[in-house]
Amino acid sequence: MDRRQFLKSTAIGTAGAAATAGGLATPALAQGTKRWTMVTSWPRNLPGPGVAANMLAERITALSGGRLEVEVSAAGELVPGRGVFDAVSEGTAQLYHSVPAYWGSKSIGFLLFGSQPFGLTAIEQSGWMNHGGGQALYDELYARFNIKPFLCGNSGAQWFGWFRDEINSVDDLRGLRFRTTGLNSEVLSRMGMAVQAMGGADMFQALQSGTLDAGEFIGPWTDSALGYYQVAKNYYYPCIGEPSSAEECGVNMEAFNALGDDLKQAVALACQSLYDQVLTEYNTNHAKALPMLVKEHGVQLRQLPDEVVVAIGNTAGEVMRELLEHEDELVARIARSFVDYRTLSNGYMKYADGSVFRARDMDFDYPT
Amino acid sequence: MDRRQFLKSTAIGTAGAAATAGGLATPALAQGTKRWTMVTSWPRNLPGPGVAANMLAERITALSGGRLEVEVSAAGELVPGRGVFDAVSEGTAQLYHSVPAYWGSKSIGFLLFGSQPFGLTAIEQSGWMNHGGGQALYDELYARFNIKPFLCGNSGAQWFGWFRDEINSVDDLRGLRFRTTGLNSEVLSRMGMAVQAMGGADMFQALQSGTLDAGEFIGPWTDSALGYYQVAKNYYYPCIGEPSSAEECGVNMEAFNALGDDLKQAVALACQSLYDQVLTEYNTNHAKALPMLVKEHGVQLRQLPDEVVVAIGNTAGEVMRELLEHEDELVARIARSFVDYRTLSNGYMKYADGSVFRARDMDFDYPT
Repeated sequence: MDRRQFLKSTAIGTAGAAATAGGLATPALAQGTKRWTMVTSWPRNLPGPGVAANMLAERITALSGGRLEVEVSAAGELVPGRGVFDAVSEGTAQLYHSVPAYWGSKSIGFLLFGSQPFGLTAIEQSGWMNHGGGQALYDELYARFNIKPFLCGNSGAQWFGWFRDEINSVDDLRGLRFRTTGLNSEVLSRMGMAVQAMGGADMFQALQSGTLDAGEFIGPWTDSALGYYQVAKNYYYPCIGEPSSAEECGVNMEAFNALGDDLKQAVALACQSLYDQVLTEYNTNHAKALPMLVKEHGVQLRQLPDEVVVAIGNTAGEVMRELLEHEDELVARIARSFVDYRTLSNGYMKYADGSVFRARDMDFDYPT
Repeated sequence: MDRRQFLKSTAIGTAGAAATAGGLATPALAQGTKRWTMVTSWPRNLPGPGVAANMLAERITALSGGRLEVEVSAAGELVPGRGVFDAVSEGTAQLYHSVPAYWGSKSIGFLLFGSQPFGLTAIEQSGWMNHGGGQALYDELYARFNIKPFLCGNSGAQWFGWFRDEINSVDDLRGLRFRTTGLNSEVLSRMGMAVQAMGGADMFQALQSGTLDAGEFIGPWTDSALGYYQVAKNYYYPCIGEPSSAEECGVNMEAFNALGDDLKQAVALACQSLYDQVLTEYNTNHAKALPMLVKEHGVQLRQLPDEVVVAIGNTAGEVMRELLEHEDELVARIARSFVDYRTLSNGYMKYADGSVFRARDMDFDYPT
């Protein structure tokens, strides 16, 4: 199948699933009290997203003063982890905690709200949502599925990946069996990698058994827990495949619209406050894990050669140009809005935060 | 006065002001409804912080479902802009919107919660608060003054400044009359600059009349509005003096403690959600303003020579070492906690977001 055609023809996902919604169970408890079920894509209390889902439920419940009690259901309890979108779309549950990256088979447009190769860092991603027109497009796409969406976390910059062998040229990527997800899969396939999707634990097994040569999951914190350093010692940056990766909350549209303004704000601001909380938790824990990987586990931090970065950048650009001409005009508009915000922010952040990182890394005497 | 002594002897600020609190007027309206007054350091509706103060009041009011109505009072209406801290400490008003940078005369410890030369970017600053022990120390310092503090915004990386003439060496800084604030003032004084504090509009006048040679205010958005490009054409980065600059909300301790858990959460999460909202607004508007400055106003974007950056870095390190030994043990603990988080994050973010900014700036073909 022609790749260009592949991108243009991914499911547009009109409101088929959404049409069945309506039978929402929101039993009245005390007067004015609602109980909502949050289905999630995570095992209960999974460090990172599982804990974040719990916090989101707690924040909404606390803000509501008990008028809206949110109960968390882990993956597989009510619905499978990848089934939460459809469950909320249909009204089986009132809201979910998951990631946009999981809904690419419904429409490739979803993937742009999660992460984009050579795209936005976490704070730029929320900048696009808040001030670059992103939220209106995010609303429009999810409304096709009867869902009101909010970003509610970000796992930060995702490292390029764990490699058994060093990468010294573009040729070294060719044929490598590599685990990744989302738009990064499309880009790296075109670079000649044999891309595979699988869960984090499966990735460890596959690296160990030799059915994978390399793979990326999230970052040092999560990746340490999964033990990749035992089977692949070269940890590569820059974080170009997924400069950030968003977590989201989706709310059944009827359930959301039935809330008063204060509870609507409770949901919206619980999500926005959690974005800061979760992003900084990942960054802090990634920062703590990295030196342990190097000092205790002999991991080599390696930078991709510039020529490899540039070649992947050209391919990422090719994929993005196709999305700008996607046959679903909404996907094309999302891509246009993303590209505009990326251009804007790329022209600025290198002078702002980017200049800080460079300057702090120079050789001067500062206490530690 | 010996500078080391200067730093060690700034007012410790024990609870003198706080002791008078207690006569809070929180008149009951409808049953269970409170009305709070938010005093601010800003003219009404000032783009940036004035608008952010309005949004904070609106978010708290909305989240409370009208049980806590917050009314905004602009600088000079009830109290002067720099008087808001004392007003809230004493209970004249229930909360304020301002910046930590204004309270350095009470204790130099306050300044570390605003910005630090060669210190934390905006998202690292909230990382320190949320996950690095910062919030507990922030609480402890402000509790001396009967205030519960929250960060509620950040204006992002502050540019090094507007200079009439080019800076080619450390010697070029000596004797320059320069406007800045906070710990940056201390660092640049030691570099031989004649540092002055003044408001943004006064800085324009002083640059125009020649009583200032140079100065920094915030970033391209705010600085454009103030017209500095008309009188100083060289705009310098990296953003080392203030890698970010936080906005804060302070709540009178008795007023805060009198709230139920849901309204306490409403205040806390309104602040945390606004941090993301405000930071991304500044970044987005700074990004929009920068190309206008270059294309329409002939501004030259210039990078400080590395030797100048390193010399300022050494001086910033000297100042921070003194804070680590400050005679107020709380200030010393705040400095220790800050330095620890900075070391942690500096060792990581250059590989994460820092690597993204570098990679995106390479020469590849990506749509714009």
